[in-house]
Amino acid sequence: MKVLTYTRAREKRAGLLLEQDVYDIAACSTYFGMDELPVSVLDLLALEKEAPMRVLYDHILENCRNGDNLPLQCCIGLDEVRLCAPIPRPPKLICLGRNYRDHIEEQGAKAPEKPLLFSKASTAVINPGDPIVIPKGSTQVDFEGELAFIIGRTVKNPTEKEAEEAIFGYTCLNDVTEREAQFGEKQWFRGKSMDTFAPMGPWIVTSDEVGDPLDLRISTQVNSEVMQSESTSMLIFTPVDIIRFVARTITLEPGDVISTGTPGGVGVFREPQVFLKDGDVVEITVEKIGTLSNPVESER
Amino acid sequence: MKVLTYTRAREKRAGLLLEQDVYDIAACSTYFGMDELPVSVLDLLALEKEAPMRVLYDHILENCRNGDNLPLQCCIGLDEVRLCAPIPRPPKLICLGRNYRDHIEEQGAKAPEKPLLFSKASTAVINPGDPIVIPKGSTQVDFEGELAFIIGRTVKNPTEKEAEEAIFGYTCLNDVTEREAQFGEKQWFRGKSMDTFAPMGPWIVTSDEVGDPLDLRISTQVNSEVMQSESTSMLIFTPVDIIRFVARTITLEPGDVISTGTPGGVGVFREPQVFLKDGDVVEITVEKIGTLSNPVESER
Repeated sequence: MKVLTYTRAREKRAGLLLEQDVYDIAACSTYFGMDELPVSVLDLLALEKEAPMRVLYDHILENCRNGDNLPLQCCIGLDEVRLCAPIPRPPKLICLGRNYRDHIEEQGAKAPEKPLLFSKASTAVINPGDPIVIPKGSTQVDFEGELAFIIGRTVKNPTEKEAEEAIFGYTCLNDVTEREAQFGEKQWFRGKSMDTFAPMGPWIVTSDEVGDPLDLRISTQVNSEVMQSESTSMLIFTPVDIIRFVARTITLEPGDVISTGTPGGVGVFREPQVFLKDGDVVEITVEKIGTLSNPVESER
Repeated sequence: MKVLTYTRAREKRAGLLLEQDVYDIAACSTYFGMDELPVSVLDLLALEKEAPMRVLYDHILENCRNGDNLPLQCCIGLDEVRLCAPIPRPPKLICLGRNYRDHIEEQGAKAPEKPLLFSKASTAVINPGDPIVIPKGSTQVDFEGELAFIIGRTVKNPTEKEAEEAIFGYTCLNDVTEREAQFGEKQWFRGKSMDTFAPMGPWIVTSDEVGDPLDLRISTQVNSEVMQSESTSMLIFTPVDIIRFVARTITLEPGDVISTGTPGGVGVFREPQVFLKDGDVVEITVEKIGTLSNPVESER
């Protein structure tokens, strides 16, 4: 399944994507006479059970090819909605540093013995297509294309199997970073948390549809030029490793987003260095998921 | 005003504390025929206006000494409720490192030129009286008594006056820290974010009632022995400085909690070192606010 958050007017609503149509989850559940499902992806995940969503999905698959004659509030064309970050405000947004060997080499660092965690403020999350805004005075805003996963179950101290089952699905995340703040301030939080610094999307692809998360091509293009291109097989710590490490001491909950780190090729370690500037477009593509594209503009 | 979160059964509800009585904000607003106010402190803050709460407070002050004959859902004795963290799940929980000169000296560090920010996971927040749990295998869990403030307005790039007005009130926070993880992992997030590592409370005292936040005695006792005792006049960056610095690039929103850093006397820099152990009780007292007390226990 592809689960997304979209908006037509003000309200952000959860939808299922089938081909080029968005099926509104709450509206369809009512229309088909099922138990009414919540309006937001976060509230859907909070149920901690996928079954109702999957029943709805199968029902649509069997009965509603191309939207049929469904009312507008149930089905609308993908090109008629505005896509939002699938989790507009994740309760936790945890990221990894140094989790691809080539990215560790390019900065002359050592591979960490355990996952290197930091967090981004949830207010940094923006939608596909929204501008990444370069703050006034900043000259070193950098991209980091990443595979992120979304937690679907409350977990603490999980077994390997429980950790695997806790992954609801995957999306793309751009861990945008202000390098001057990151490297000048000892703690990365501020340089990673500025407004617009966490583009996310375009949607969540559920774990069953992704299959092996360690066999995906991930790439970042800036103005159509390939800057990062790697396989997720090069991840040092896998999503299951990460969940087990984090949740040994920190409870993970539905809607928490964990981003697995970026491969080599980021702007700051290139020669010459490449930083984002007004007018750029950054595209992150993860195989089986899709492309997250955001323009860049300077703060007015 | 003293604004708190309490529970009698399952639901966490916002209350006003007058002497030894808790007045339920939502229930009282209805009972007195005013516009109904939200049930949670977070939703109250989201209104971004204090006036309705203040009208209610004044009404209670004038008409309801000692609860009068109010029904139980409107007024209940402080000793009959369970106090909760005033903001059980802050959207952001931002903390400062190295913001008291004596704490910088004890660790042989330099005073930072700008506020040193990091974050704690909101799942770490616990209530007054809840146990701080030492994770299995941890031997270096430390206390950090702090003055924290709660954001009441959405602010980005605020003036000094706007920053001041954005502070809804103050509470006590224990920035509990696993020192091995903090110092062993380069980023502090994990060592600061373990479950139970952010005791908060006992309530919020609004800015008007606190007066000057830079003239408060703050102290931490472990088993009644004074470990930290300092005046907030020794803060390097004031709450207004911090808000202006953070919100230059990161939007602050109602319910965000910012903890101003800890004074000297933490366990790890003492000789001999003192770490928390099963059976300890940690009390943080901030003048004009109150005392936050939590027992310590080992993970079972």
